[in-house]
Amino acid sequence: MIKVGIVGGTGYTGVELLRILVNHPDVSLEVITSRSEDGLRVDEMFPNLRGHTDLKFSVPDAKTLGDCDVVFFATPHGVAHALAEEVLNAGARVIDLSADFRIADADEWEKWYKQPHGARELLPEAVYGLPEVNREQIKTARLIAVPGCYPTSVQLGFIPLLEKGLLEPQMLIADCKSAVSGAGRGASVGTLLCESSESMNAYAVAGHRHLPEIRQGLSRAAGGKAIELTFVPHLTPMIRGIHSTLYARIPNLDVDLQALFEARYADEPFVDVMPAGSHPATRSVKGSNTCRLAIHYHKDTGQLIILSVIDNLVKGASGQAVQNMNIMFGLDEDAGLRQVALMP
Amino acid sequence: MIKVGIVGGTGYTGVELLRILVNHPDVSLEVITSRSEDGLRVDEMFPNLRGHTDLKFSVPDAKTLGDCDVVFFATPHGVAHALAEEVLNAGARVIDLSADFRIADADEWEKWYKQPHGARELLPEAVYGLPEVNREQIKTARLIAVPGCYPTSVQLGFIPLLEKGLLEPQMLIADCKSAVSGAGRGASVGTLLCESSESMNAYAVAGHRHLPEIRQGLSRAAGGKAIELTFVPHLTPMIRGIHSTLYARIPNLDVDLQALFEARYADEPFVDVMPAGSHPATRSVKGSNTCRLAIHYHKDTGQLIILSVIDNLVKGASGQAVQNMNIMFGLDEDAGLRQVALMP
Amino acid sequence: MIKVGIVGGTGYTGVELLRILVNHPDVSLEVITSRSEDGLRVDEMFPNLRGHTDLKFSVPDAKTLGDCDVVFFATPHGVAHALAEEVLNAGARVIDLSADFRIADADEWEKWYKQPHGARELLPEAVYGLPEVNREQIKTARLIAVPGCYPTSVQLGFIPLLEKGLLEPQMLIADCKSAVSGAGRGASVGTLLCESSESMNAYAVAGHRHLPEIRQGLSRAAGGKAIELTFVPHLTPMIRGIHSTLYARIPNLDVDLQALFEARYADEPFVDVMPAGSHPATRSVKGSNTCRLAIHYHKDTGQLIILSVIDNLVKGASGQAVQNMNIMFGLDEDAGLRQVALMP
Amino acid sequence: MIKVGIVGGTGYTGVELLRILVNHPDVSLEVITSRSEDGLRVDEMFPNLRGHTDLKFSVPDAKTLGDCDVVFFATPHGVAHALAEEVLNAGARVIDLSADFRIADADEWEKWYKQPHGARELLPEAVYGLPEVNREQIKTARLIAVPGCYPTSVQLGFIPLLEKGLLEPQMLIADCKSAVSGAGRGASVGTLLCESSESMNAYAVAGHRHLPEIRQGLSRAAGGKAIELTFVPHLTPMIRGIHSTLYARIPNLDVDLQALFEARYADEPFVDVMPAGSHPATRSVKGSNTCRLAIHYHKDTGQLIILSVIDNLVKGASGQAVQNMNIMFGLDEDAGLRQVALMP
Repeated sequence: MIKVGIVGGTGYTGVELLRILVNHPDVSLEVITSRSEDGLRVDEMFPNLRGHTDLKFSVPDAKTLGDCDVVFFATPHGVAHALAEEVLNAGARVIDLSADFRIADADEWEKWYKQPHGARELLPEAVYGLPEVNREQIKTARLIAVPGCYPTSVQLGFIPLLEKGLLEPQMLIADCKSAVSGAGRGASVGTLLCESSESMNAYAVAGHRHLPEIRQGLSRAAGGKAIELTFVPHLTPMIRGIHSTLYARIPNLDVDLQALFEARYADEPFVDVMPAGSHPATRSVKGSNTCRLAIHYHKDTGQLIILSVIDNLVKGASGQAVQNMNIMFGLDEDAGLRQVALMP
Repeated sequence: MIKVGIVGGTGYTGVELLRILVNHPDVSLEVITSRSEDGLRVDEMFPNLRGHTDLKFSVPDAKTLGDCDVVFFATPHGVAHALAEEVLNAGARVIDLSADFRIADADEWEKWYKQPHGARELLPEAVYGLPEVNREQIKTARLIAVPGCYPTSVQLGFIPLLEKGLLEPQMLIADCKSAVSGAGRGASVGTLLCESSESMNAYAVAGHRHLPEIRQGLSRAAGGKAIELTFVPHLTPMIRGIHSTLYARIPNLDVDLQALFEARYADEPFVDVMPAGSHPATRSVKGSNTCRLAIHYHKDTGQLIILSVIDNLVKGASGQAVQNMNIMFGLDEDAGLRQVALMP
Repeated sequence: MIKVGIVGGTGYTGVELLRILVNHPDVSLEVITSRSEDGLRVDEMFPNLRGHTDLKFSVPDAKTLGDCDVVFFATPHGVAHALAEEVLNAGARVIDLSADFRIADADEWEKWYKQPHGARELLPEAVYGLPEVNREQIKTARLIAVPGCYPTSVQLGFIPLLEKGLLEPQMLIADCKSAVSGAGRGASVGTLLCESSESMNAYAVAGHRHLPEIRQGLSRAAGGKAIELTFVPHLTPMIRGIHSTLYARIPNLDVDLQALFEARYADEPFVDVMPAGSHPATRSVKGSNTCRLAIHYHKDTGQLIILSVIDNLVKGASGQAVQNMNIMFGLDEDAGLRQVALMP
Repeated sequence: MIKVGIVGGTGYTGVELLRILVNHPDVSLEVITSRSEDGLRVDEMFPNLRGHTDLKFSVPDAKTLGDCDVVFFATPHGVAHALAEEVLNAGARVIDLSADFRIADADEWEKWYKQPHGARELLPEAVYGLPEVNREQIKTARLIAVPGCYPTSVQLGFIPLLEKGLLEPQMLIADCKSAVSGAGRGASVGTLLCESSESMNAYAVAGHRHLPEIRQGLSRAAGGKAIELTFVPHLTPMIRGIHSTLYARIPNLDVDLQALFEARYADEPFVDVMPAGSHPATRSVKGSNTCRLAIHYHKDTGQLIILSVIDNLVKGASGQAVQNMNIMFGLDEDAGLRQVALMP
């Protein structure tokens, strides 16, 4: 059994990790930390876990965490920097769900997250945990930066084209619609039911923190070429799900895109290329670790439209984190992740 | 492996059975029928199942169904009567999710369902599949009538009191709030998102088909005494969940109700008596087979209030059906049913 | 034109007052206060008001407020006590939407609101602003206590029976389902979309602050008799609306209840007794000042079930407040309140 | 008083017309037709209208309709063609909310709507009822084609640029998110609450019927130049609202777009250009006839992003229809349309 610790388990990615891990056949949950909830039973905060775990929140402690085989960080940005190093030094591997190690360029990170980067020396060994791209490096990594939710859905849609050099370093557009859980479990007026249900709006059109992360991933897929990307996130009145509508122009294309995507993801357990003409709905992945893609190409105009849906809390966060763990420890990649999406 | 067939798999209880059964460790799904969808891949209708099953819908056929070990009927009322007999005769056991065998009195059934009862001769052997009451009979039953959603939530709340003779044959009240999926997957104006979201209303106050079923169950728990019950169902703007608020008066009670309930359900894997003072939310059981109960007693007035929540599609239908199957075939009672509720 | 001021305009009852008053033909909005938002344009916080008002929030000031003809208090409990007196002394009339003057017994108020009552001397002249009961006193009142949302829906349902002496001083039950806006616009985890949508739960079963207010109103209607009432509020996943399901037993009733209710409310502009057998939906009053009632009586058991729906922010708060103002100033009672409910 | 008739009043645009017209100060509602509901009181189908109208549905009759000053058609596509001519000949003016007269090219119409055009001879005099473009022609028109919901939101966003020649005949993108009421009130599985809430999906990516209408409008604004437009509609889990996110590239722009838009719409009562940097939410127009726009320009890439929100049933249908009527009859353009959006 793999001994697992979780740092910061009171948010949505934390409870989602718990939901998955309490039923994972190869995992022993050892510790879950929260400074503010020290001593509280986890299932008192999250009654869906009643009967599944007896764990209590405790104050984070590098020694206890270091005794784990792997520690998940489900903390706000900036928190993992310091503690991750201690935990790594104590011998555990680290899977960080925050943005702390996603951007390779620490200066760029500081610009977007408006705080000093607290662990620049760890950046070189941090592996960007998108299994569809970095599976080999993940196997041996000590430190994983789990991709963000928007970046996962956008990269999985564009990467097959960029890898093949089919997109010029031109303007790509990602019009992304996110469920409200993407904003986290913190009390705020904007995400109250009365404010965010029965409504839709774009936000952060001037620039969102996931933009540099997406650009970095797309650029890597394009062999280092710079990518021009317009990214417009929208708040959508639902609990879970991201729907990314991706636009690019490829005039006079003579490649079978459907076949290209199907080949690219043929061996991927969690990417489902739907039949040509499909319109995946976010509910088809609710609670599951799957990304569903559909490819549409308008021959007359050369316009390509890619539809990409994930559950932001699973493939966009905690499920992908567990997928990384499975790869790191040589388990079946879908261990603990075979749940069917809840529909309806 | 237990060979399983499903009759009528295109509704919500059908797809929910599939969601559970494709991951059940002891089940081999052999056949799923639908006259209207003959030949269609199941995952084409329900894309959440892509990658989980290759089954296609087929026309129901007693021979094929009879070769199964057990056949689930997820059909509208009145359909199971005729076919169930054929399937039983062909050697399979039957678990019926419809109302066809729930009411022991065929005349009463005909009065509420406004059609002739098509299988009166099977009624004596039909076992009402509420495991918390009839576990022993379920083990050897050939024919199970899976309880309705409202009846499950109401009976689990009242039964411990009735079994102990704590309630006089007096007026009990069940004020029940159901999610919209309880109305099924048929196209109808009343359950359109634009009609049923952002609103709440009672319905069938003059009399609902689940009333005789609930009365029958409560009366049995009371040792045959007649029960006066007022049952008011409400349509609630959500996909899944039933919240039953149960009222009874027991002046001058000197019993520790909390202890009584905890003892009654101590060994039940799917009934969770919450701590005194709790208010269970339906989302705490979303996608899970659990019924959560909370007991409130107002000493000054003698008013008892019991809160009972289930997922109407799981403990209220398909999950309970699988729980019955597990008991019938000597499997772990929670095999395939260990999923944690999806929260948020 | 009636000069109007609003104290505390940043919550849901505040913006709802504004929505109604900016189109009221006889009103001139003079001032709206908020300490925290001093100087901010109202339509910057509430963009639905863009084009309808140029008002800015200002710090409350007794002089400015006193120059108004009437001042609405849309403040949290405890705030109106001190300022209301100043404003009254300065010559304005006061319509208080908070609970500060609803309970005639200050000790009772302190018990439930857990703070000292700050204006006991004003209680004798405070008129409980339920027009269907107190229209005459409202006309000349200086100080109106606008009823709470639950109390409005429950009282309008029970009062016709109590006035006629048809209910014994027995146990009445009010099972009430409220939209989330009833919890206000404050940031809190429990009313986040991700916490309160797709779920339902009871709360405060042990005792809710609206209980003494409802009991007081029912008792008055019963000529002073004490009322035993069980009140269970539920949080319902929608923005607006209250659905109260009221239970009482009247064995051997020989009164035509439908006719009784129709007669009682025949001249009421905002109470709609629906045809016998109806099931009013909350959406039928969304955005309107109407209370719709339906009466159901089960002859065999003597059980009476009354369904009562309102928009908690309109008839349950701001609309009722404006109705009071119209009565106080001799305007048409429905001036500014003729909006049809938004459906769908 | 203007005598008004409505043909086909049982859908969402019908009841929305009624909601607006029963409070319109200059309108007398004479007749509302529905073949299927002949004789039924309108408020029995739509209880929000109880107390506001005594009208009953009747079978459409050209004579009765012809006696009106104006007749609204709220019918499915193809129905207005035949009857409109009769009504016009009988002397009434016609405002058609369907698509029947929106496309000037009847062959194009037939291609998209897959039926013969039944009134080609009326097309030359049909005026496209977008007041912000065609106010003068509307004044004297006998026959108005009210724009579709998507087309209204997209055209109001792009038109100021096209009129100024700022956009080359290049690829424009309209990524549009529509509430479910856009799909109408007909019973269908896809728009059940359980199918369409808690989910999002694109649809008709290969081509949607509103595409030719939008292209026609944009092309006219561009002085007849052909427009390349990619239009991707999405189904969004809410009752009302359209959020259109519009993309265009204008490298090296030296025009102040904010000022351009503000000037273009300065005198428009129902177009609100929000301050630079804004993100309008659809709820800010819920129930109101306003279109809110926000302009974002990324200097470094030349990417222009325009956000445009409307209530699809008001400015996208029935409100715009009434706005047309007001213009046609010389009334205040906002008569009956001054309602503030319902927020929350």
